[in-house]
Amino acid sequence: MKLAIDAMGGDNAPQEIVLGAMNAVSEIDNLTITLYGDENQIKPLLTNDTNIEIVHTDEVITSDDEPVRAVRRKKNASLVLMAQAVKEERADACISAGNTGALMSAGLFVVGRIPGIDRPALSPTLPTVDGKGFLMLDVGANVDAKANHLVQYAIMGSIYTEKVRGIPNPTVGLLNIGTEEGKGNDLTKKAFEQLKNAPINFIGNVEARDILSSAADIVVTDGFSGNIALKTIEGTAQTVFTLLKETFMSSTKTKLAAGLMKNDLRGLKNKLDYSEYGGAGLFGLAAPVIKAHGSSKSRAIVSAIKQANHMVEHDVTNTIKTTVESIELDKE
Amino acid sequence: MKLAIDAMGGDNAPQEIVLGAMNAVSEIDNLTITLYGDENQIKPLLTNDTNIEIVHTDEVITSDDEPVRAVRRKKNASLVLMAQAVKEERADACISAGNTGALMSAGLFVVGRIPGIDRPALSPTLPTVDGKGFLMLDVGANVDAKANHLVQYAIMGSIYTEKVRGIPNPTVGLLNIGTEEGKGNDLTKKAFEQLKNAPINFIGNVEARDILSSAADIVVTDGFSGNIALKTIEGTAQTVFTLLKETFMSSTKTKLAAGLMKNDLRGLKNKLDYSEYGGAGLFGLAAPVIKAHGSSKSRAIVSAIKQANHMVEHDVTNTIKTTVESIELDKE
Repeated sequence: MKLAIDAMGGDNAPQEIVLGAMNAVSEIDNLTITLYGDENQIKPLLTNDTNIEIVHTDEVITSDDEPVRAVRRKKNASLVLMAQAVKEERADACISAGNTGALMSAGLFVVGRIPGIDRPALSPTLPTVDGKGFLMLDVGANVDAKANHLVQYAIMGSIYTEKVRGIPNPTVGLLNIGTEEGKGNDLTKKAFEQLKNAPINFIGNVEARDILSSAADIVVTDGFSGNIALKTIEGTAQTVFTLLKETFMSSTKTKLAAGLMKNDLRGLKNKLDYSEYGGAGLFGLAAPVIKAHGSSKSRAIVSAIKQANHMVEHDVTNTIKTTVESIELDKE
Repeated sequence: MKLAIDAMGGDNAPQEIVLGAMNAVSEIDNLTITLYGDENQIKPLLTNDTNIEIVHTDEVITSDDEPVRAVRRKKNASLVLMAQAVKEERADACISAGNTGALMSAGLFVVGRIPGIDRPALSPTLPTVDGKGFLMLDVGANVDAKANHLVQYAIMGSIYTEKVRGIPNPTVGLLNIGTEEGKGNDLTKKAFEQLKNAPINFIGNVEARDILSSAADIVVTDGFSGNIALKTIEGTAQTVFTLLKETFMSSTKTKLAAGLMKNDLRGLKNKLDYSEYGGAGLFGLAAPVIKAHGSSKSRAIVSAIKQANHMVEHDVTNTIKTTVESIELDKE
């Protein structure tokens, strides 16, 4: 597999990106990587260039750049060149830990959509209490979704979960404000009806309270609600850990307890760290495009590379394409 | 103040409701309470009936009842009789820990709206890291909100926060998927424009990630997104505590640490327990209607009673009414 990687995107670029690329090449057979970015910074870090090449560019899209404008104007940015390589079939898939909006724009305008898919969906795998994890989509690629978009998300998510995550006949839940049929807003009521007839294992509505307890393998939702849910999970977990840290530091006794617990608490934090599951796929594009978390370390980059590799090996894109072609979606 | 309370609503009814009522009467001057429910169950629990009377009814709305139908058909249910007492001005305010949907229906169809308010909003006060707390509305009274509804929420929330929570010129944030102006879906883009011109202290968009860190005193959102955010907070906190408990029970060493931390951990959990802030107000109704949490113990009931008392004493309802009358809202 040939992989294009934006070496300049993310909080720890290019160090952790380059390190992740080297580690992945040593672990995965038949993998070649092209790193896009500043050769002067990348080269000293690339201590082993087996199966890795650099395509130099000075231009970079930062997290402050307005996404659509940046992709249009910065034609030589590492993120744009990476997407271009996929478009021109010089690479099978691409990964960036940079500006999420810019990656979505480059995905849409450079890589392009799968015919029949109206809107791509940003699709992270999130942790659950039992360690199984679940896929949530969309978490923000498309903020004003229609019911038939949610059906497409369900189909794409099911194919990914079965092929890449190895879960047969995965369950699909619709994120809603109650579990009973008939609950929700206009969008979820319409989507519920359409999901019942879609070629997926639809189990009905799931509540936000239950998604981290493995309520469904795939949770479909519009990009606005999905983004709210995702960021609320992050913010709440962060809040509890902040309060926990304060509690541990509050007295000699609690500091002693903290010392006893140190390694176990790290294990607890790792359970909630979703970089283990790879990055967030931008499903519905003509090739796998993966958004690695902005704070990715080399381990998370390796996970994202494995994820891209699985998607290519199991031909996820073509399976989505043929599945969507074979069914008729109600597009109102 | 005359308060009507549904003695049969909630997981711990009627015991904790009756206990809460007795405690509140002993703490608050000039408070009289009417308890609606099964006299045979209530009377043995009512060990001090100073300023408390019982209105007997056998009928009760359960958590399984379909809300609108239950309120229409069970005309003698404790929750409905309680709302009727407010409607007929035999009580100044009412509280139930029962079926949320039924309380919203009874609020809307029995108590009625403030003229000029299109939709009532369910408005809990949630905890923040610094202990200050914030008001979020709507969390589910109205799932398909329009921009001008959000402006009304902002006005109602500001009046409540200033008068009852004692925060002068409280900040209002719009729950959104990014902080910059222009972010979001159709609804939040329109609401942003209207909120800029409303008679409130609007500080712009706030992200779900930051709301528990005191991003704003009041967070306005449509009922669907608000419900997703609220339940995600509950589910995530629950998940972290479950994992924390597992970690504490995993070895002799961690059990020892747990013993050392016991009281401090209880303090941590209390920080996140929003029953301390009272119940969720149903703002926009012709009198204060408070939804106490279903799992309320007597302490939470006392908090809700104090909250209702403050709302009546500070004339929140009339202030909302006159403020809404004085401004012209853009109702598209």
